[in-house]
Order: sequence, then structure tokens, then C-alpha cells
Amino acid sequence: MTEPVTEAPVVKIGLLGRGTVGGAFHDLVADRAEAVAASVGARPEIAGVLRRGEGSFEEILAASDLIVELIGGTDPAREYVLAALEAGKPVVTANKQLIAQHGDELFAAARKAGVELRFEAAVAGAVPIIRTVQEGLGTIEIERVSGIVNGTTNFILSEMASSGASYEEVLARAQELGYAEADPSDDVEGADAAAKMAILARLAFHTPVGLDAVSYEGITEIRPDDIAYAKELGLSLKLLGIAERHGDGISVRVFPCLLYAGHPLAPVEGPFNAVTVEAPAITEITISGPGAGGVETASAVLADVVSILGGEAPPHHAEERLEVLSDLESSFYLHLEVADRPRVLAAIADVLGRHEISVKSVVQRGEGTDARLVMVTHRTPEAAFYDALEEISGLDFMRAPARALRVVEEEYR
Amino acid sequence: MTEPVTEAPVVKIGLLGRGTVGGAFHDLVADRAEAVAASVGARPEIAGVLRRGEGSFEEILAASDLIVELIGGTDPAREYVLAALEAGKPVVTANKQLIAQHGDELFAAARKAGVELRFEAAVAGAVPIIRTVQEGLGTIEIERVSGIVNGTTNFILSEMASSGASYEEVLARAQELGYAEADPSDDVEGADAAAKMAILARLAFHTPVGLDAVSYEGITEIRPDDIAYAKELGLSLKLLGIAERHGDGISVRVFPCLLYAGHPLAPVEGPFNAVTVEAPAITEITISGPGAGGVETASAVLADVVSILGGEAPPHHAEERLEVLSDLESSFYLHLEVADRPRVLAAIADVLGRHEISVKSVVQRGEGTDARLVMVTHRTPEAAFYDALEEISGLDFMRAPARALRVVEEEYR
Repeated sequence: MTEPVTEAPVVKIGLLGRGTVGGAFHDLVADRAEAVAASVGARPEIAGVLRRGEGSFEEILAASDLIVELIGGTDPAREYVLAALEAGKPVVTANKQLIAQHGDELFAAARKAGVELRFEAAVAGAVPIIRTVQEGLGTIEIERVSGIVNGTTNFILSEMASSGASYEEVLARAQELGYAEADPSDDVEGADAAAKMAILARLAFHTPVGLDAVSYEGITEIRPDDIAYAKELGLSLKLLGIAERHGDGISVRVFPCLLYAGHPLAPVEGPFNAVTVEAPAITEITISGPGAGGVETASAVLADVVSILGGEAPPHHAEERLEVLSDLESSFYLHLEVADRPRVLAAIADVLGRHEISVKSVVQRGEGTDARLVMVTHRTPEAAFYDALEEISGLDFMRAPARALRVVEEEYR
Repeated sequence: MTEPVTEAPVVKIGLLGRGTVGGAFHDLVADRAEAVAASVGARPEIAGVLRRGEGSFEEILAASDLIVELIGGTDPAREYVLAALEAGKPVVTANKQLIAQHGDELFAAARKAGVELRFEAAVAGAVPIIRTVQEGLGTIEIERVSGIVNGTTNFILSEMASSGASYEEVLARAQELGYAEADPSDDVEGADAAAKMAILARLAFHTPVGLDAVSYEGITEIRPDDIAYAKELGLSLKLLGIAERHGDGISVRVFPCLLYAGHPLAPVEGPFNAVTVEAPAITEITISGPGAGGVETASAVLADVVSILGGEAPPHHAEERLEVLSDLESSFYLHLEVADRPRVLAAIADVLGRHEISVKSVVQRGEGTDARLVMVTHRTPEAAFYDALEEISGLDFMRAPARALRVVEEEYR
């Protein structure tokens, strides 16, 4: 077993926040102090804990060699982290909003002070995706980062797919199980995933990516029959974040999206997270694991602390300034509830044809008042598709607004 | 775009070996030199290349700041790497046999000289599993590492499953496609996977693991009907490496094995590699990607070079001495070709019962000269199972030797 390394100097950690992750981190430090001492020659010890309305940040900062920020939110977290960096103390945070909204300011402060700012736990909990993008892939040119980075929505979509239940029913179940919060809007509307994708895009492409550069849609409009039809076509539905490089431009988006079975993210079920990184030099690499959980997140925070104590520093990259693009191409799934009468398909095909949208597959389902057309298109400019969609929605035989979802069309493996 | 960083000092790389990976690495260095300079402030340059019968190792060593060993095999690679480390020069290698067989000696030489020895590309090509186990997970206590670490065998098993073709037919196809070598024995008999699992076990458990500590079986005896029956039971067949900690003991094994659909390695198809790391603090993390390929492997080598130039050092861990255990438990799939007559099942149930093996599911198939029993057992001591297997094979109604495969029984997710 590990021998005590009694001579290892103590490193004092100031812990800001004592919620679920803070508590788990506190216990983990006590549990792993000897192992950390054996590994990097320094024994971590909690010097002070700042709770809501208890403790003084200034006193804790003065007594600490390193700050761990687990308060969440941006105020007062931003102020505390800036003060710690300016005092020359490295910081580890699990705070995605802080990094997504104030990353540039914080990175600049860390560089100026010559200390580290690490944030592995801010994206995908225990899954070491930040480290892999920053350090594990050297200096390859990343083409695309695709991620299931919100466990709540992946749980809901998995449950809808396996049970056939409605979004509302499954959301209620997720809330009972603790996978969704009482107010789930941040997760289900896509904002949480958008903040994480902004962070990943920044690291992958070495360019500032503000939250306003990320367009996002959530899963609140998804209906069970979309998932069922998609399944028949061999597709599964995920809330996907996709950050792509297009020459000197990038796009960063979050949307519900259909994946073919061969896609590396297609098998990711339940409250798990997974991220796929694509580049010519590595083909594709996928990392998956639990996206949240107190112990898992605390473990990612401790790994960052260990890296700082061990003197590892993520490489600095030359900054680029890439434009955020919005005129993109996608393949689409299209679900049309139509009247059951002749020439309906011809009329729709005519609209699609005039917009130069070519159809990959089309299935006609039901009859009478339940007639519907389910199609998948080839890759097409999104603007043209949405123009066509508007035109189709205005046709007199449409019984309900047209429904559309993006499809990741590339062939994997 | 990236600005040239003209003032960055040059780091001279001595390249040993100029095969597929060596050639790809040579090109990659030329292509990424500016990006590396921008990232870590040092521009890599190939100072000399040692080819078979061309170039002098001593001259290349003297002219280099860092050695990249891509010769393969252990002789003269071991001698060259030792000489480089003793000369105080960091080494990056992609050589699994070198690390698996001579790791202890080489790690000691690196520690003594105070220089780094990195080997990400030795296991699973571009998939950054070494880095994740060494650095990405901090100091958590790893319980189990399971891996599909041989792309050739995973390709063969995937093809057998999808086509129903025999091992021999699919091997021939794999050889045509370049996924299997002319002499495939190292891959298909499990020795290649065993060397990689020895390396992963060493890093996961901080204990010396010699090649002789790894028991292995290959896939040459697998028949299409085993895969077909397993599929009916919801199981898929993989050649799996499993390194587990049991208190103060470990086991490291490679064997063909059946996985339930929920297992994180079950969806890994084709020539891909994937490794799952399990620990209470992280639940489970899975990394997957291409297991080989010149560019992919070269890219992992360059990531190691960048880490060395950036001054990152993997943490040192206190050494443990864990015993290698062999009295383990497994769940088994059992395939028995029997005569079609009364009391056959009762006789088999009697043998299993006397060895305290309980059966989870049993299916009777075929009749007359094609009658067979396919069963899955609950977890049972392996020694008891093999005793029972021998006894069953001696029963007079058996038409062929009994066939058995391990099943990973744990429920995932």
C-alpha cells in the first residue's frame, strides 16, 4: 500500500462554496491527501471554506496557496477568481458560466500573473475532455467538436425513446430522480449546453467565442412520434453541440439532431456525456462518462489541483480571430402532417426542387386524417431549407405546422 | 491564421526508424512546426533519421535534443533508448514491446537522468489513454481497466458478426484490406493485446506488471454460430483486455468475451480501439478512436513531443507491489452439442449443480443430430467452472467438445 510521505510540504487550499460538489471535494481531499503527496510531493489541505454568509474571502485567500471555486454563477465568483489570480494564486473552478462569459478576462489575468487557471469540471464532469483538447492532442488542427454535454436532456431523450412517453411525462420523472432541476429551463432550452460548447470551441480553435456566438435550440418541442419515426429510419435523437471550423470561420451551435447508428455519439444513453473530436490527423476520438454527480465533479477538480501541484501547465496557443458563420449546410428530417389526397407529394417535391433540396428517403404513413410524410434530405444550405419549409407550411393540405430536425449525415466508420 | 514565431529556439529531434509511422511523423513535424512553436515556444526540427543500415545512432544522438524511437522490437531499440536517457535526452516511443518488456529498466533510467520517457502511441494509437490514466484522473484509485486494444481482432469479430462468415474467411479479407498482417499470430492469438494491457495495468495500479503476468487467449477458435447465439441473447463478442484490482492483488487478462448491450465497449466496431476506466470517484470513463494508422500514431507521438517541450511531466507515483491473482470469478456462456435424447439437460444440470454453478439462462436449439444447449451462468469461480466443463465433455451424449466464453455480467448504466 501507499507509504505515508511525511516530509511532503502542505499546500493550503481555499475552498469557495460548500454545496454538493464542495462537500464531495472536501472529503476527497482528506481521503487522497497521502496519495497526492506521494504523486506530486505536496500534500493538499483545506485551509478554509467560504460558505454563504459564513467566512471571509480575504482571510481565506491570505491563508491559501491555491483557490478552488465551487460557488457557481458569475457574481461574486468572477471577482473572487480575479482577486486570487491577481494575488498570484492558481485557481481551479468547475464554473462553466464563469469561463464561458468571462474566460478572456480571466485567462488574461492568469497569464499576467503567471499562474494557472484550470476548469476541467466545467464541461462534462469527470470526463477529461478539456485536458484532451488542450493537451492530449498536441497541436493538431481540430475540424469539429461534437458533444452530448448536458446529461439532463440526454436522459430525457433516452427515456422518451425507450418508453414512448411524452416530453412532459419524462421531464417529471427526471425531476423525481434528481436528473432535472425544479426549473429545468437552463438545461432543456439548450443554454447550459451552449455555455459548454463556447468553452470547447474556444479551446479547440484558439479563438474567443462569446456566449452570443452560440446559437441554440432545446428539446421542449420534441414529440414522441418524431423519435419513433426516426428510429424506423435507423436514427436516434440527441441534443448535440457542434463546433466546426470552416476555413477562417467557425460555427458553434446546439440543437436536437438525428444521428445514424454508426455515429460515435449514437450509443450514448441516459445521463451520460460524450464528446467526439475530429481531425484528419486523428480521424475521430470520443470520450464518454458521467456528466455530473458530486463525487465525479469533485474528482475532476482534484485532478486539476494535482496537475497544478505537479507543475504541469497547459500549452499556450497563438490566438486566432475566426469569424462566426451562420450560413451553413445540413441534412434534415422533415415530418409533414398532410391531408390524404392526390398530388400532395408532387406539390411538396416541387417546392423542394425549386429550392434545390434533394431528398434521400421518403416514407408515407397513415391514411385519412392521420396521413403524414416523413423525409430525410441530402445536405442543403440551411437558409434554402427554411425558405422551403415556410412555403410548405403555407400549402392548403397541411394539417399542422411542418416539423424539422437536423440530421448528421456524414458516414462514420 | 497562426503567425510565424520566428524567435522560437529550435529543438532538434533524432528520429529512429522511417517506416509508415516514421514517415508520417517526419511530415507532421514539418507541417506543425510553427504551431508547436506558437504553443510551447520551441520549434521542432528533425536533426537526423536512422534507417535500417543507414545513419549512425551515435551521430544522431549527439546532434539531437530529444529522441523519437519508431524502430519497433526490443533490439536494438532498448539499447538506443537507454543510451539516449543516460545522455540526458528525453525519449518518445511508440514501441509497446519495449515498454511492456523493459519498462521498469527504462523508467528507472529516465528517473535517474531526470528526463522524460513518453509512450502514448504504444497503446491504442491516437486514443490518449496513457495520458488519461497517468494524468487525467488525478490520484483516484482505479478499480478496473477494460480495453479493446487490438484493432485487427475487433475488425475480424465485427465482420464475423455482421456477415456470418467464418474466422478464416474474414481473416483473409482483413489481410486484403491491410487490417491484418501476413502472419497475424501476434494479433489473433492475443499477445499484442497482452503487451498493451501489461502497460495499462502498470500505470493504473502503480505496480510492476511483467508480460508473464498477463494470461491471454485469442480468437482463432471462435465460430460464427457462437456469435449468432450470443446475439440472440443480446450479447456481442469482443477480444477484451481486463486489468482489475482485488484488494492487494491484481489480475490482467486478455480473452474473447461476451458483453451485454449496455456495456460501454459493446458498440465499438471495426478496427477501432476503446478503453473503459472504472473507479468509484468517476463511475466509468470510456475513450475510443482509431487504434492504428500511420498519421494517427504519428500524431500521438507529436503530442508527446509537445508535452515534453512544454515542460509537462507525468506525476510520479509511489510504487506498490501487488500480487497477480489467478483464482477469479466469471460468468460464462456455454455451448454444448448434444445427442437429442431424454435426460440430457438433467445430467448437465446435475454436473453444474455439484460444482455450485447456477444458470442464468438456457436455450435448447435444433433437434436430432443438430441438438444443442446454449447457456449463460451466473458468476462462478473459474476453477469450478473448468472442472465442470471437463466433466461435461466426458458425458457420453456430447457430440463435440464443449465450448465456453466468458461474459461480462455487471450491469452498466
